[in-house]
Amino acid sequence: MNKQFVNELADINTNFAQWYTDVILKTDMVDYGPVKGTMVIKPYGYAVWENIQQYLDKEFKKRGVQNAYFPLLIPESYLKREAEHVEGFAPEVAVVTYAGGEELSEKLIIRPTSETIICEMYAKWIKSYRDLPMVMNQWCNVMRWEKTTRPFLRTSEFLWQEGHTVQSCPEDAEKDVQEMLKVYVGCLRNLMAIPTLQGRKTEKEKFAGAVATYGMEAIMKDGKCLQAGTTHNLGQNFAKASNIRFLNKNGELEYGYSTSWGVSTRLIGALVMVHGDERGLRMPPNIAPIQAVIVPIANHKPGVNEKCEEVFNLLKKADVRVKLDNTDNTPGWKFNEYEMKGVPVRLEIGPRDIENNVLTAVRRDTHEKLTLNLGNIVEEIQSLLKDVQDNMLKQAEDNLKASLIETDDFDELVKSVNDGKVALAYHCGDEKCEEEIKQKTTIKTRVIYAYDDSHKCIYCNKPSKYRVYFGKQY
Amino acid sequence: MNKQFVNELADINTNFAQWYTDVILKTDMVDYGPVKGTMVIKPYGYAVWENIQQYLDKEFKKRGVQNAYFPLLIPESYLKREAEHVEGFAPEVAVVTYAGGEELSEKLIIRPTSETIICEMYAKWIKSYRDLPMVMNQWCNVMRWEKTTRPFLRTSEFLWQEGHTVQSCPEDAEKDVQEMLKVYVGCLRNLMAIPTLQGRKTEKEKFAGAVATYGMEAIMKDGKCLQAGTTHNLGQNFAKASNIRFLNKNGELEYGYSTSWGVSTRLIGALVMVHGDERGLRMPPNIAPIQAVIVPIANHKPGVNEKCEEVFNLLKKADVRVKLDNTDNTPGWKFNEYEMKGVPVRLEIGPRDIENNVLTAVRRDTHEKLTLNLGNIVEEIQSLLKDVQDNMLKQAEDNLKASLIETDDFDELVKSVNDGKVALAYHCGDEKCEEEIKQKTTIKTRVIYAYDDSHKCIYCNKPSKYRVYFGKQY
Repeated sequence: MNKQFVNELADINTNFAQWYTDVILKTDMVDYGPVKGTMVIKPYGYAVWENIQQYLDKEFKKRGVQNAYFPLLIPESYLKREAEHVEGFAPEVAVVTYAGGEELSEKLIIRPTSETIICEMYAKWIKSYRDLPMVMNQWCNVMRWEKTTRPFLRTSEFLWQEGHTVQSCPEDAEKDVQEMLKVYVGCLRNLMAIPTLQGRKTEKEKFAGAVATYGMEAIMKDGKCLQAGTTHNLGQNFAKASNIRFLNKNGELEYGYSTSWGVSTRLIGALVMVHGDERGLRMPPNIAPIQAVIVPIANHKPGVNEKCEEVFNLLKKADVRVKLDNTDNTPGWKFNEYEMKGVPVRLEIGPRDIENNVLTAVRRDTHEKLTLNLGNIVEEIQSLLKDVQDNMLKQAEDNLKASLIETDDFDELVKSVNDGKVALAYHCGDEKCEEEIKQKTTIKTRVIYAYDDSHKCIYCNKPSKYRVYFGKQY
Repeated sequence: MNKQFVNELADINTNFAQWYTDVILKTDMVDYGPVKGTMVIKPYGYAVWENIQQYLDKEFKKRGVQNAYFPLLIPESYLKREAEHVEGFAPEVAVVTYAGGEELSEKLIIRPTSETIICEMYAKWIKSYRDLPMVMNQWCNVMRWEKTTRPFLRTSEFLWQEGHTVQSCPEDAEKDVQEMLKVYVGCLRNLMAIPTLQGRKTEKEKFAGAVATYGMEAIMKDGKCLQAGTTHNLGQNFAKASNIRFLNKNGELEYGYSTSWGVSTRLIGALVMVHGDERGLRMPPNIAPIQAVIVPIANHKPGVNEKCEEVFNLLKKADVRVKLDNTDNTPGWKFNEYEMKGVPVRLEIGPRDIENNVLTAVRRDTHEKLTLNLGNIVEEIQSLLKDVQDNMLKQAEDNLKASLIETDDFDELVKSVNDGKVALAYHCGDEKCEEEIKQKTTIKTRVIYAYDDSHKCIYCNKPSKYRVYFGKQY
């Protein structure tokens, strides 16, 4: 499948966008769907998503989150209830007008997110403080009809999880969004070896209808930011629009305090763009669909295939995600293929290795060649995978640090961001000022680093409200 | 949440349909969605689905199935390619005509099943016999605009998995559908304690566009059959419609041999209707979201809460899905609630139990009360759960056997099926004959028991082709 394309990637340094498209298509992560802006997530890409799901689902459940499933189609009238919210989504929705051979009396919207329909159900289910907190999550598809699309990063349909909670006081809602941001940051760091910048979004950049939005930003190899996940404290806004009221301990009816939070298949795009190199993908072991690939050398020689199978079975039994490639492609061909697919460790086993009771391991992250004793191969590989994971996180952290600059000079900010940096600067917090910067430079704020009124705004020179990251975005 | 309805179920013997609706709503498995025919799967219902997913996903992966994700929206033209197929689905589809604020140039169909779009992609990916077998599965939502709906059993949107394979010879395609039927039968039997009747569907009842459809039928408490899963051998029909061709080992272009197979959230309905009783749900331990619930007795007395927590932690550590209910509801209230929710084992711990170093366990399946020693409580509970699982399978098998009759007399067939039986009878295999029976009696064939031409058709008296099960269906 696409074998002829091995090693025909665009140059990562001079044409990052084309490199990205090449690498995700040629490693069989994804293909374009027949409808404009849609994607087919192929097994090698979907396995990454499954590993993300598994990690997050476990963390959610530890925290008492219950999974549920809410309908795909939302009555058009629901979206109109929350005025700010509808402004954010109205132009991007896909609309069902016919079903069962008849024109529908009310148009139905394919969910761009499920706030409105979930709040509607919560309003029905929640009567008293005893019913709170209400803490549910769903894994599902959503649809936003985007004009410009790229697989994983921005597609009309994508997969995500959306968590929705209702609490009986604003403090607990705020706790939820901060806790879930931590879960996301942990997922990126521990599973995907991706460090992030995280914090509150500015008023201008927050989710339509939210009181506060928190985001985490991962920095791609080209210095652009990718919003990798968000959590929204919705205050009582959605509760008021949907009439979610509960009898509090004083016997009074009170509107609930709701939150929502989500990450999506975008994360797969982040994985590619944070770790990839000129030879293709690099998968951190903890999320890699294949952690180690065994390539037999001179396998017409007696004993080679048997030894490969033996090592394969040992590793498989120890829950290493291992693949044995005994197709009739040449070893060199296989080296290229698994390098492009970013398999963290390649294991070569040939007649000479077997004589010496060793195998040759090659790390994808450092290209280092190691001779490992077959006597305790499971421990050797497990320890090697851990090393690769740690090193890839360190490399990504170094890249992140190298991307950051601090500046008080607006021209320097613009120049450095255009050169692929993320700039930390003071800002007044005024939405108009932020909009002017965006209009002039296409540069936007990412997340707030810290509130600090002791300086001046880098643009308008008025007193600062906070220090905030500025960058270009995916 | 709906606490006031405990013990207000319709009578299971005289009003099974209402009992079903009552029990799924009042145990918080499901709620109605805002759009007609849709459902919200609440956590207690969704947890059942998650357990089904986990079981099947593991079995699929053991057999080399890879998960992937294909788009929700299918161009209308795709559905028209396979003439028989479109006849089956055209009236039931939901159609997107507007998106991104504009009318679409081609209407888009929300997938009623993904054969057409998956085959389109397969046609692109498959070039040679080396690319085969192609074996993918997706977990997703699908939509069929049904006129009459009931939660889980028939809803406009439902969740399912759909597996799609392409093989290079008809024998391997046939192997796939038989193997996957076995996986499904195993899931129902081992996880859900549901025995099934399985076999090939008649020509009249097969999937539109298939060469052969296999189904498994579970028998509900009222004697009606529920088609719990199907596997379809599509021969070269879809390959021809989508132009899936591969270069075979002789260097000739050949159409692939494809299959598809699926089970859905219908299975949750089957679980309810196979095992439920006058007091509500009965969950077999292997699929139960809560396997054991601990109810403290006189928990104002010293040591009761501590002992409950201790037992809870022991069981949790041993991976028993255990819940400790220390709300301020009365024990009697809790007994009713968890009985209705079908929790397989209830554990009561009070001061006297603690004195004697025991607890009282009550089985949901037999209502038997047992005194268990706290000294080795984990083993006691694990063994008890296994007993309950085995007993529930045996009960369901006895019910299935009691539902079956064999007959050569058509009037007896009609009468007994109307009385809630499933009848095994000889049939000629002629579609018109089968249609006549259906028109006259609303009775349909379920699955073929065995091919046998030594008898006469129960209806038209011509030579028999097979023995087949007749029944009423959900």
